[in-house]
Amino acid sequence: MGEFGLIARVVAGLATAPTTLLGPGDDAAVVAAPDGRVVVSTDMLVENRHFRRDWSTAEDVGHKAAARAFSDIAAMGAVPTALLVGFAAPGDLELSWVDGLMSGLRAECAAVDAAIVGGDVTASDVVVVSLTALGDLQGADPVTQSGAKVGDIVAVCGRLGWAAAGFAVLGRGFRSPVQVVSAHRRPEPPYFEGPRAVAFGATSMTDISDGLVADLGHIAEASGVRIDLRGDAVDVPAKLREVGAALNVDPMIWVLTGGDDYSLAATFPRGTDLPEPWRTIGVVAEGEGVRVDGRRWPHGGHEHFR
Amino acid sequence: MGEFGLIARVVAGLATAPTTLLGPGDDAAVVAAPDGRVVVSTDMLVENRHFRRDWSTAEDVGHKAAARAFSDIAAMGAVPTALLVGFAAPGDLELSWVDGLMSGLRAECAAVDAAIVGGDVTASDVVVVSLTALGDLQGADPVTQSGAKVGDIVAVCGRLGWAAAGFAVLGRGFRSPVQVVSAHRRPEPPYFEGPRAVAFGATSMTDISDGLVADLGHIAEASGVRIDLRGDAVDVPAKLREVGAALNVDPMIWVLTGGDDYSLAATFPRGTDLPEPWRTIGVVAEGEGVRVDGRRWPHGGHEHFR
Repeated sequence: MGEFGLIARVVAGLATAPTTLLGPGDDAAVVAAPDGRVVVSTDMLVENRHFRRDWSTAEDVGHKAAARAFSDIAAMGAVPTALLVGFAAPGDLELSWVDGLMSGLRAECAAVDAAIVGGDVTASDVVVVSLTALGDLQGADPVTQSGAKVGDIVAVCGRLGWAAAGFAVLGRGFRSPVQVVSAHRRPEPPYFEGPRAVAFGATSMTDISDGLVADLGHIAEASGVRIDLRGDAVDVPAKLREVGAALNVDPMIWVLTGGDDYSLAATFPRGTDLPEPWRTIGVVAEGEGVRVDGRRWPHGGHEHFR
Repeated sequence: MGEFGLIARVVAGLATAPTTLLGPGDDAAVVAAPDGRVVVSTDMLVENRHFRRDWSTAEDVGHKAAARAFSDIAAMGAVPTALLVGFAAPGDLELSWVDGLMSGLRAECAAVDAAIVGGDVTASDVVVVSLTALGDLQGADPVTQSGAKVGDIVAVCGRLGWAAAGFAVLGRGFRSPVQVVSAHRRPEPPYFEGPRAVAFGATSMTDISDGLVADLGHIAEASGVRIDLRGDAVDVPAKLREVGAALNVDPMIWVLTGGDDYSLAATFPRGTDLPEPWRTIGVVAEGEGVRVDGRRWPHGGHEHFR
């Protein structure tokens, strides 16, 4: 099957969304940008670096890749509208893998009412999935990483450390507990909390893809502030304690430095009464970097632990 | 140098465009979409398939990749506004190559008043450049591939066959004539003729990335029509005749089937008085496929010649 055949297969059965003005198949797609602006972000996933075909199904990879792309849109306070898929793969890749990938991407799109509007397919020695996500701000200002103010509270929502625990489990050759392995395979970003955070007055926001401390470090640097976390406010779920005990790892490491859960971290004006699922975990102070109970934490997330 | 260092290098020195509301460095960028719609297309280039590092400089690859992306935007009748860059490369790639790539991308952006607004960097065994281009329709309807009507005239603008001739020359181990080699290394798509074609009433349009006959074949199929080309109306420039004679190749093959010049082909209502650089080369008839002087041509472009 040649390139055109594969493209046809990738495009086959794609659903459109209300924002899809012209879907796949032409030179370019046309997507509605109701408020005259479009939020856009691109991500590249490479086999054996971002995923392993023996650890995740094709459908898992689709879910995870789309989650990674849409969480960037949510982190601006926007709603995802569209996804474009660049796909490179070895010529002998099973077609069922392509179908699985597209199925995972489609399912994640359906969860946010977005559509796959375009793509490109080519050959390469390893599987590369390059995604571009588009989003709509619905009239709101984008929430950047640079707006944190001294005195703000720091809050998170979504899972922390679960994907890292799953990664650790898989790395030791285990396939359970299923909760953490699933968290690694299919993150569940709290997409809708992004626009919701705007309504609560978020002053800065980011998705947690490199790890809580590393990503808060990006906010600290962009905003010219220090972020002080209270260790006892950062919840370590019982399940992670259990996995940590089994693997002889302090689960707090996963919570503070694990990426790939694609949760959200944000700052809000002092006194903001944040509802669930947001948890307040610290405050913004003068200075730089991120501290946990007053101690400096190394930045770097993924890089630090490589 | 780790991933963050490379990202910093890729982002360094990026210019913004008037449409750049929020540039690179945050979770996502924000781009103006003045008419409430955004045109978007994605392309993936893989080393040794779409380019060779010994045949093209990094700057050439940047020019070519951006040309390929923006020509899709032009083919809808839109004006490019922004570019996002996914970049995967081996860890030992020289930094000067990255700088060259970015320089080529920036130059091509500057030519259309667009900006690089985001990107992602990761590691892989070969260089992969994944580009997503955004564009603005300026209030016009998008020109699709499906609007050709029986009786329309068929016209092209931009170079045809030059990049293919350059590819043939390089494939035989030569580095000249420079005109065709340069055409392969740095295509010069007629970007601004895309929106101009809208003003002339284009009924369908596409960029020529797979070859004239193959891409007109896409229009024929999408529109449910046949396209009849007059061989004597399709110009074979003296330079291509010269190269063809030297390599013992009929240069008409390059003109009819060579991709990678990223020129534009479109259909217009009968009687449209098209100004330079548009050249009328045929008519739209009832039926299917593409014929040259009444003879059916094989489709498939790149694939056909693989």
